Order: sequence, then structure tokens, then C-alpha cells
Amino acid sequence: MASYQALAAGRTGVPLLAPGHVWLAGAGPGDPGLLTLDAVAGLAQADVIVHDALVDKRVLAMAGAQARLEFAGKRGGKPSAAQSDISRRLIELARAGERVLRLKGGDPFIFGRGGEEAGALADAGVPFRVIPGVTAGLAALASAAIPATLRGVNRAIIFATGHGEEEAFDWAPLVRTGQPLVLYMAMHRLEAIRDALVQGGCAPDMPVAIIASATLPTERVLISTLGRVADDVREAAIEPPAIVVVGEIVNARDRLLQIVALAGMR
Amino acid sequence: MASYQALAAGRTGVPLLAPGHVWLAGAGPGDPGLLTLDAVAGLAQADVIVHDALVDKRVLAMAGAQARLEFAGKRGGKPSAAQSDISRRLIELARAGERVLRLKGGDPFIFGRGGEEAGALADAGVPFRVIPGVTAGLAALASAAIPATLRGVNRAIIFATGHGEEEAFDWAPLVRTGQPLVLYMAMHRLEAIRDALVQGGCAPDMPVAIIASATLPTERVLISTLGRVADDVREAAIEPPAIVVVGEIVNARDRLLQIVALAGMR
Repeated sequence: MASYQALAAGRTGVPLLAPGHVWLAGAGPGDPGLLTLDAVAGLAQADVIVHDALVDKRVLAMAGAQARLEFAGKRGGKPSAAQSDISRRLIELARAGERVLRLKGGDPFIFGRGGEEAGALADAGVPFRVIPGVTAGLAALASAAIPATLRGVNRAIIFATGHGEEEAFDWAPLVRTGQPLVLYMAMHRLEAIRDALVQGGCAPDMPVAIIASATLPTERVLISTLGRVADDVREAAIEPPAIVVVGEIVNARDRLLQIVALAGMR
Repeated sequence: MASYQALAAGRTGVPLLAPGHVWLAGAGPGDPGLLTLDAVAGLAQADVIVHDALVDKRVLAMAGAQARLEFAGKRGGKPSAAQSDISRRLIELARAGERVLRLKGGDPFIFGRGGEEAGALADAGVPFRVIPGVTAGLAALASAAIPATLRGVNRAIIFATGHGEEEAFDWAPLVRTGQPLVLYMAMHRLEAIRDALVQGGCAPDMPVAIIASATLPTERVLISTLGRVADDVREAAIEPPAIVVVGEIVNARDRLLQIVALAGMR
């Protein structure tokens, strides 16, 4: 993997990850080909890489020889405590003068608590930089040959999280927009979300796509309808992580995949 | 820029852009550091690169020595005709056996007619692959230090386009979700969209951020409110391309930027 490091080092205008600084970077959806050059530059320069469970091994393999890897997954079902632990650890590492890469799956600012980590760093006076990434929702759509937007079908698209049972969330206003939904972390509560969407006015025959492990060799795509999706997921034994797409845009997939055998598209 | 090509050539598992194939790839928001490795691999391998106006010169400079550049901007105010021209041209190039990189700003499947180009290629039997990119909306949020999602503030985020006077679009249902809006191509119709949002129930003192030329050296960020934004944009002479963010998430920027001088964040 030396060539990636050579790239990062040789790049004109490559940003410098300085000692005591944190880069809060997106690792993209999984496929190392969807890393950004700046994320690669961070991997090459970091002394410590604090990463989530969803960051692929092949991505972490691009780290420089000097880099230590620290896993910052959720532990023991206490997400809030773990989150403040992560922020504290980033601050501690930066204050010790380390070059810190905080690597999060997808884009760091969408559904990943990146905003909270950035806020904690700012409060502590730790200099940081945010490096956006390819978000899992858009990567899943591209990989499954489903356009996010299509003229005559939609002028907006809604990204929402299925995570967060702590408060009641009213799905009906999202349904009433008539725009497609791209749901992150919705697999654990798929039946409850389906019920809420149907009660909110979404037709049970609305097309649904489930894209599990998008862009990875283990990617699986399931096409269903809102009414059938929970049964179909169970029957096909589709496991998270997965993106759930609800909307007419799913219908475009058939046209785009008519030559799939030729194209070798995932 | 030879090091990028060396990277693409030396990468383990780098996908091959075969003669007669088209890659429909996102070029990210502008900063070459936000290109994906797969887009770099496409630039290195392509015989012809068909690109939009929004693709940065420094990105195009990473093309291989053999590559011809073709500009596919909209011409003469006839967007529909130009769009079918672009699809026809991609098909023509692929049938001539060229390795074709279709490079679009941001992500190819969101607000960029990528779905229509993919559909036309599929209809013509031309093999293609879709490579997602960092979408301008998320890049603008990261660059402006505005988290896309924050616990306790929002569980969804809506991406919408301001383009498309051909049909009347009802903005009120989007407002009623209470979720932040990230608007693409909204600068030309900013006053009309503001009026529609206010009539739809959005408070005139709702925070608004305008991020123009996000991630480029010419980036400008304007913080305003929905009621004042059109006047503020005129006074500050902010020009498109720009992303318009409407929602409480804009308020998080102050906290994140408290140490901006230290961090050198854009």
C-alpha cells in the first residue's frame, strides 16, 4: 500500500496534519476506492487513527507505518457514555501532541455524531478540520443503480435516521412531502418505521430497496414494497448495516440494470 | 501530477476502465483533495473526459496524457436539448471504443441528471459504472462548520433543488417537516423560494447559511436569516454556485468556529 502514501506525500497542496491537531474525516461507505485523497493524506500522516466499526480493514491498511489504530465502537450498550469517552480521548491525544485522524464511516457530519465531536474539540480549544466523505446513502443509491433524483419524479430527497428510540419521532410529515426517503440505521426498527410510514399515508405498494453492505464485496440488494419489506428482509436474512430507500426512484433501477451483465455494475 | 497516475496504476484492485465503457463519476465539490480514488483512477485511464463547468481545473489537470477533454456545459439556454446531446455524445464515444469518463460536479446521481444519462446509456446497450462522489451540500456543510445532523435538533435533512421553473413546486410540505433544508441551484430564484418557505410556515428569523464556491479558495460563507437573506446576498455580492442551508443547524457554527484561528478551518 506504499503507493497511497507516496501519493499523499507527493501531492501538490496536500494539507498538513500537524501535531496536536485532529482531522474529523469521512471514510466513505466501505470500498477503499471511495476514499477521498484528503482522507488518504490523513491516513498517511496520522500518529493515531481513532476509527468506527464501519471503517473497512482495507481502508485502515492504508495507514502509515507509524500509525496506531484505536477502535472507538460503541461498548456495552451505553452509547452516550461511549460518545463522551470518544470526544475525551480525541482531546487527550491531541493535547499529548499526536497527529490524530478521527475516521468515521461515510460523511462525518451526517448521522455520525461528528457535530458533537467537533463541538467538544472546539470547547477544549483543540484545532480540528472536517473532511467530508461519500455518504453511505448516496453510495448505496449509486451502487444499486437508483438515481437519487429524476426529472419528473422528485425535486428533493430526504435523509433520515431510524436510530433514536429516546424520543417519539413523527414520520408522517416526511411522508407528506411525497419525496423519497433514504434511511440510515433503520434495520433494527424496520417494522415500527414501516408502520409509521403507512400510518403517515405512504402506500403499502411503494417501492423499497434495501442495500446492505453497500459498495463492499458482500453487498446485497433487496427490492420490495413497503408492505412486504419486513417479511422479505427476514426471509432473505439481510443483515445491517443497510440503507433503506423508500420511493418511486427505486423503479428506475430496472432500466439502468438492463445491461448489467455487460457493465459488471454491482 | 504524475504521482496521481502512479497511484491509480499501482493500486491493488483498481477498477479497469475498459474500451467502450463509460464511468459516470462524481468529481466532488471542487477541492481536488475531495476526489475519490476511483475518480482519480478514471482520470488516469480515460481516453476522453466529458466534464461539466463545475469541475475544477486542478481536477482536470490530473487526467492522463492521452486524455482529451470535452466540455459538456449547457449551451444557448436550451438545457433539454443539451442534455440529450450529452447522452448522445457519450454513446457515440463509447461505440467508437473510447474509454469514457463522464465527470460531474459533486455526486453524479443527485441533481445532476446522472440518472438520465445512465438511462440513455443503458437503453443504448453501452456498459457503464456509477462512481459516487462527495456531494456539494455535505461538503459545504463541512466546510462551513455546520453539522448536517445534531442530536436534539434534527433526525432528518432534506436536499432539494431550486432549479426547475417548468412545474410549480410546493415548498410548504418540506417546511412542515421541521427538518433543515439544503438547497442546490437556488440562488437564481432565492427571493421566490424565500417567499414560498415563509408562506409555507418557516419563520423569517430561521437561520440561513449561504456557502458559495464551497471548498475552493474563493469560498465565501454568509450567515443570515430567511427574512434578510436576499438583501444580504445582494449587499455582499455573493455569486452562484452556492449551497443554501435553512435551519437551526446553522446555529452550531458559532460553537465549532470558536477556535478557527488555531485550526485554520476553511
